[in-house]
Amino acid sequence: MLLVFGSAKLLAELLERLGQPGIVGEILAGVILGPGVLAWISPTDLLKILADLGVMFLLFRVGLEVKPSELLKIGATATVVATVGVIVPFFLGWAILTAWGAPRIEAIFVGAAMVATSVGITAQVLSSKGLLRERSSQIILAAAVIDDVLGLLVLTLVSGMARGSVNPIEIGLTALMAVLFVVLVAKWGTRAMGRIVPRVQASLRVAEGEFALALIFLFTLSLLAIWIGVAAIVGAFLAGMALAESVGQRVRDFTNGTAELLVPFFLVGIGLHVDPGVFRTPSTMALAAIVLLAALASKFIGCGLGAWPLGRADALRIGVGMIPRGEVGMVVAQLGLAMGAISQPIYGVVVFMAVATTIAAPPLLKIVYRGLERPEGADEILRLG
Amino acid sequence: MLLVFGSAKLLAELLERLGQPGIVGEILAGVILGPGVLAWISPTDLLKILADLGVMFLLFRVGLEVKPSELLKIGATATVVATVGVIVPFFLGWAILTAWGAPRIEAIFVGAAMVATSVGITAQVLSSKGLLRERSSQIILAAAVIDDVLGLLVLTLVSGMARGSVNPIEIGLTALMAVLFVVLVAKWGTRAMGRIVPRVQASLRVAEGEFALALIFLFTLSLLAIWIGVAAIVGAFLAGMALAESVGQRVRDFTNGTAELLVPFFLVGIGLHVDPGVFRTPSTMALAAIVLLAALASKFIGCGLGAWPLGRADALRIGVGMIPRGEVGMVVAQLGLAMGAISQPIYGVVVFMAVATTIAAPPLLKIVYRGLERPEGADEILRLG
Repeated sequence: MLLVFGSAKLLAELLERLGQPGIVGEILAGVILGPGVLAWISPTDLLKILADLGVMFLLFRVGLEVKPSELLKIGATATVVATVGVIVPFFLGWAILTAWGAPRIEAIFVGAAMVATSVGITAQVLSSKGLLRERSSQIILAAAVIDDVLGLLVLTLVSGMARGSVNPIEIGLTALMAVLFVVLVAKWGTRAMGRIVPRVQASLRVAEGEFALALIFLFTLSLLAIWIGVAAIVGAFLAGMALAESVGQRVRDFTNGTAELLVPFFLVGIGLHVDPGVFRTPSTMALAAIVLLAALASKFIGCGLGAWPLGRADALRIGVGMIPRGEVGMVVAQLGLAMGAISQPIYGVVVFMAVATTIAAPPLLKIVYRGLERPEGADEILRLG
Repeated sequence: MLLVFGSAKLLAELLERLGQPGIVGEILAGVILGPGVLAWISPTDLLKILADLGVMFLLFRVGLEVKPSELLKIGATATVVATVGVIVPFFLGWAILTAWGAPRIEAIFVGAAMVATSVGITAQVLSSKGLLRERSSQIILAAAVIDDVLGLLVLTLVSGMARGSVNPIEIGLTALMAVLFVVLVAKWGTRAMGRIVPRVQASLRVAEGEFALALIFLFTLSLLAIWIGVAAIVGAFLAGMALAESVGQRVRDFTNGTAELLVPFFLVGIGLHVDPGVFRTPSTMALAAIVLLAALASKFIGCGLGAWPLGRADALRIGVGMIPRGEVGMVVAQLGLAMGAISQPIYGVVVFMAVATTIAAPPLLKIVYRGLERPEGADEILRLG
């Protein structure tokens, strides 16, 4: 644990000094420590658990800073961004693998792995720069949540195809449940929590009851999300959002503390999965490069196009913000591998794509958001004063 | 996770309403959910990891509230308390088991399991009532740390006997290292951190660098403690103490947040280990009752005697504060079981003793500290204002 946490922070510090986002350093720490380079650590259950908790708290923290009323206002744009941003990468991924001569199901799985955006990375960058209140940031967050629901549907469809039986009722039901879950929590969660939290809290006698309450709500929604089929982090994000207007500073501070401890494990965990086998044969290396370029370009163009009506600057920001695939792409690839739908080399290529897009996004975000950064709390007050 | 966390907080709330410490509720939640009663959950790796992290952060948090200069002042008294509090329970445990007809090595192991105090429980109770600054509280904390070092020596000795070879050099070396570690960190840790932390922090560019630094220090000392042979929590406590005067409120808030999340897993984890098999035969039930009474009485009398010069009230408080055996007694019992030195029924008896002393301590503490409780932060200011 010391090794993971220490080296993550060390590389983060190093990259900050080089003028790059520290988050990239933490992922690189995983790549360097992992089987690919030093082979000092490999993914274990312990790291997996800490990583899962880390990304949960990361999204919970982001949710706490988002007002659902604002998010619903930009819902239409976000839906367009998410939809175009799902279609373009899917077909591009499928087309490349088909041109490569891969079997139909493998091409479809790679397309599916290129679909889902990992909102964690972008959220972390935006939140650390105090940019979460920007219109473009809000659209990225909303679009990433919708993206996850769409990604779930694609995955359900694709796994059905791999099993050889597509069940339209199952897909319809999954879609209905996922949409209902997101819409219900986003729309009425805040009001419900606004009524419940102060009342319950006033009657609680246990110490730090408010934080305990928030955590219970977080765990409940995350579980519910998993049960429905969307990622746990969607539940965590919605839980944070629903509580955003009803919990005090103390809960925020406590959440930040927990996230600070756990998030590095999530970031290092992403880096750990890079498989050096990809770089052993020139042909897979070439494919990896092509898939990576396609992954970068397709989300950027797809989401940027969807956001075009907002003007060039915001379209650029949204296009870049949706690039990282992170752990979501890896989950799809793992499923495909487990179902025998994709081969080991292609699995390596997809993981490489997921990690590389994740590392590429923070520096790009830094460029497109140049001039908008707000220094954190204390500095801002000083400057205002 | 939801089940563990939720039910822990629910029972804590219930017991607070009944006028009992919430901490007892969280341990009872473990007993009820565990194999003994409902059998809904059993100890898993995940719970174990979260529990270990929980007790680490618990002791780190307590350390952050303790000034080493104050602790060193009461060092002599604490050493007496710890020493008498080790000798009395050991011989009583050994005598009972010998009278019971147990083999010599088993009697010695049970004696060893009755030695070490689990400071976590007492620290949690005292800290939640704002009593950590009391003289008696400081003595309990210091004595518990010394206790742990003495317990380590007893355990080294006892495992040597179980293996059939006692190595005096090994024991001397272990003793030397453990004592050096504690004394060095307690005496110079604060000064070193007072110089290092502000300097390093000023040059850090990474976000929340101070908390990251504190965590790295915490992990390092915990690892060092394990490597030397004392419990990780001793390292965590010392790390907190060394940082107490050099870190800001933000690090404290973050630590509190992490502890609030993780500590319930530690408490539930203790309860989970109760083995209902103990209550199956009347003879082990009788033995369990006798061992429990001896465990309660021996620490109370031993530590109370050691603290007698401080007056009746403080002697009483210190005697009660040293009662809980918690996870430390269980570790000794597990080791004995693994080495074949103690049998399954006796293991059950020791675990029962460890859990029962832990549950008994908080209500007793409440009684002996009556009238001294200080409500937390905000209330105090209001009353002073």
